[in-house]
Amino acid sequence: MKRVYNFSAGPATLPEKVLQVAANEMLNYENSGMSVMEMSHRSKVYQQIIDDAEKDLRTLLNIPDNYKVLFLQGGATTQFSMVPMNLLKNGVADYLITGSWAKKAYEEGLKYGRMNAVTSSADKTFSYIPDLTNLTFSPDADYVHICDNNTIYGTVYHKLPDTKGIPLVSDMSSSILSKPIDITQYGLIYAGAQKNIGPAGTTIVIVREDLIREDLRPDTPIMLRYDIHAKNGSMYNTPPTYGIYMCGLVFKHLLEFGGLEKVYEHNIKKANILYDYLDQSQLFYGTVNKKDRSIMNVCFKSDSDELNDRFIKEASALGMVNLKGHRSVGGMRASIYNAMPIEGVQALVDFMRAFEEKHGK
Amino acid sequence: MKRVYNFSAGPATLPEKVLQVAANEMLNYENSGMSVMEMSHRSKVYQQIIDDAEKDLRTLLNIPDNYKVLFLQGGATTQFSMVPMNLLKNGVADYLITGSWAKKAYEEGLKYGRMNAVTSSADKTFSYIPDLTNLTFSPDADYVHICDNNTIYGTVYHKLPDTKGIPLVSDMSSSILSKPIDITQYGLIYAGAQKNIGPAGTTIVIVREDLIREDLRPDTPIMLRYDIHAKNGSMYNTPPTYGIYMCGLVFKHLLEFGGLEKVYEHNIKKANILYDYLDQSQLFYGTVNKKDRSIMNVCFKSDSDELNDRFIKEASALGMVNLKGHRSVGGMRASIYNAMPIEGVQALVDFMRAFEEKHGK
Repeated sequence: MKRVYNFSAGPATLPEKVLQVAANEMLNYENSGMSVMEMSHRSKVYQQIIDDAEKDLRTLLNIPDNYKVLFLQGGATTQFSMVPMNLLKNGVADYLITGSWAKKAYEEGLKYGRMNAVTSSADKTFSYIPDLTNLTFSPDADYVHICDNNTIYGTVYHKLPDTKGIPLVSDMSSSILSKPIDITQYGLIYAGAQKNIGPAGTTIVIVREDLIREDLRPDTPIMLRYDIHAKNGSMYNTPPTYGIYMCGLVFKHLLEFGGLEKVYEHNIKKANILYDYLDQSQLFYGTVNKKDRSIMNVCFKSDSDELNDRFIKEASALGMVNLKGHRSVGGMRASIYNAMPIEGVQALVDFMRAFEEKHGK
Repeated sequence: MKRVYNFSAGPATLPEKVLQVAANEMLNYENSGMSVMEMSHRSKVYQQIIDDAEKDLRTLLNIPDNYKVLFLQGGATTQFSMVPMNLLKNGVADYLITGSWAKKAYEEGLKYGRMNAVTSSADKTFSYIPDLTNLTFSPDADYVHICDNNTIYGTVYHKLPDTKGIPLVSDMSSSILSKPIDITQYGLIYAGAQKNIGPAGTTIVIVREDLIREDLRPDTPIMLRYDIHAKNGSMYNTPPTYGIYMCGLVFKHLLEFGGLEKVYEHNIKKANILYDYLDQSQLFYGTVNKKDRSIMNVCFKSDSDELNDRFIKEASALGMVNLKGHRSVGGMRASIYNAMPIEGVQALVDFMRAFEEKHGK
C-alpha cells in the first residue's frame, strides 16, 4: 500500500521529505556513527541539533531576544498546570472557554487560584468564537488564557482579545506555524508538537523572560518550573532528544518552503478548496460560524448520520483516512495541517463531489 | 564512517537490528500507509503497538497482574516528584543515598514530607553500596527509595534491603531489563527509557495497584497522578507514541534473544571481559568496591590524568566513543548496556591492552 492522505487531528501527517531524511539518518547521523536516538544529550553533535532547532524556530516566528524557547515534555495538558503554577502572583487569571481543551485548562487552573471564565461558547457546542469587543478582564489577573485553534470544533481566533496589557497565554497546539504571528502580543505560547510540528512527546513553550519567576511555591515539582528549564537550556534532565531532532527537520523544511508567509498562503489555498466546495454543496455543510473558521481543522457533515458514516468508510477505502469527526460534533473533520499536501485536499473534494452526485438530493 | 561503539551512559546505543526496522518502517508502518509518528494514538493500529509493548514487557519481567505498567513522560526526574506526591500518606519516607541521582530524588522528596536519609556512601564518592544488614527504617515510612544502579559511579545493589514490608521504590533507569528480577519485591519501579530500553522521552513505571491512590492533595497536577494514567491506559493525553513504539521493538528484540536469563548471561560475560582485564592490569584499575560492581557502567582509570585523556582521545579515533567518566569520578566509564555488542567490549579491552603495553610501567 502506498502512503495515505492522513487527516488525523493529531498525531498527524508529517512532510514525506522529512520522514525520508529521518529514515536515511536512522543508523548514522551525518557520519557520527550513531543514530540521533543514541546520542548523549551532552555531546557536541546533539547540542548542534537542539541549537539549530531553536535558531530555526526563532527565524520562522521572528521570536525577539527577550523570549525564551523551551523544549519540554508532557504535552499541552502539563502546561495546563505549569502556566498557573509559574505565572500566578495575585492568584487570579481569566480564561476564554472556546472548547473542551480551553475548559480543561481552566479546570486545572482552578487548583491553583481564582480562575474566571470570562466568556464561553459552550451554549452552541463551541461552534463560534465569542465577541471579543466587550470582554471585561479582572484588573488583577496575572494572565488571560486562550486556546487559539479549537481542534475538535474547527474554530480559530482571527484576531486576539485586547487584554489591556495583561499577559496573553495561548495554547497554539493546533495552529502554531500555520501563519506568521506577532510574538510580542503574547506573554506565553505553548504547543504540543504532534499536530503541526513533529512527533508526540515534545512540547514547545515560548515565554517572555520577565514572566519566568523563581519565587514559586516551594513544593512546585522541579520539572514543572520554567526557571529551571530556562536556566538549563531545556537540558535540566535528558530532553526528548529524537523528538526535538524531528521538530528541527520540520523547521528546516518550512524555511526551505519560504517561511511562514508562504506556508500561510498555501494553507489558505488548501482551506479555501474545502470551504468553497462546502459553501455551494447541497449535501455537506460546515459546522461552525463562517467568520471563525479554522484553516487547520475543517468540520463538516451532512444531515444523515448514515451518509456521514458511509462517506468516512468509502473515503478510507480510497486512502483518505481519519476523517471521522470528534464524537461531540459528529460528522467529519479534515485536519489539514501544514504537512497535508494540496493534492490531499483536492482528492478529498473530488470525492465529496462524486459522493454528492451519487447520494445528494 | 561506519557505526561506532558508543559507550555513552545515556541516551545510549540501541540494537542495530531495531534501528534498521525503524528506518524501514519510517514512511509506512505495516501497510498502514503512514509512519508510527503520524498515527492517531486513538487508532486501532496504534493501540495494538502500545498493547504489544506492554504485553512484551510483562513477559520479559514476569510482571504479575496486580501491577500496572505505565508509559509516561518527563524522565526519572519527574518521578522524583511523582513518587512522594502519590505515595506519601503518613508523610514519611526513607532514602538510601548511593549517588547523586539518589540524592536528587531525596532532595525533591523533602518538598513533600519528612524524608530520612537512612544511609549514604557519600563519604567515599559513592564508590560502594552501604551495608544493608543493620539499616533502621522509619516504622511509619510510606516507602523506602533506592537507586538500583548508580550510573555515574558504577555500583549496583546485588541484593535488596529488607524493608520489612515497607514498599520498596527503585529507580532502575540504568539497570532495568539487564537481568531477571522478582517484581513482587518492589512496590514501584521507574526507569527513563534512554539507557537500556529506547529513546529519551519515555518513562516506564511499574506499580503495585494498591499503592495507586485517588485521595491526593487536590492541587496535584493532573499529569503527575498515577491514578489518572492507570485509569486511562497511559493515554489520558497523547503519549510519546513513537518512543513507546521504539521501546516495543526493543522488547521484541530481547524476547527473540531468549529473554532476560539469556540477556543477563550475556551481560555478565561482557562485564567480566572488562573486569577481568582491569583486575590484572598494572595501569588501569576499577574505581568501586569489587562486590558492588555494576555490569552496566564500568568505571576505571589510571593514576595519570594525562594518560586518561590520551586514552579517551585515542579510543575515540578508533571508533570507541563517549568513554570519558563523569567529572565527579574522573577517568573513564564504559557503559555497556544490553545493546552493546560483545565485540565492542572486546575491542575496548584489546585497545586497553595495547595502550598499557605502550604506556604502562
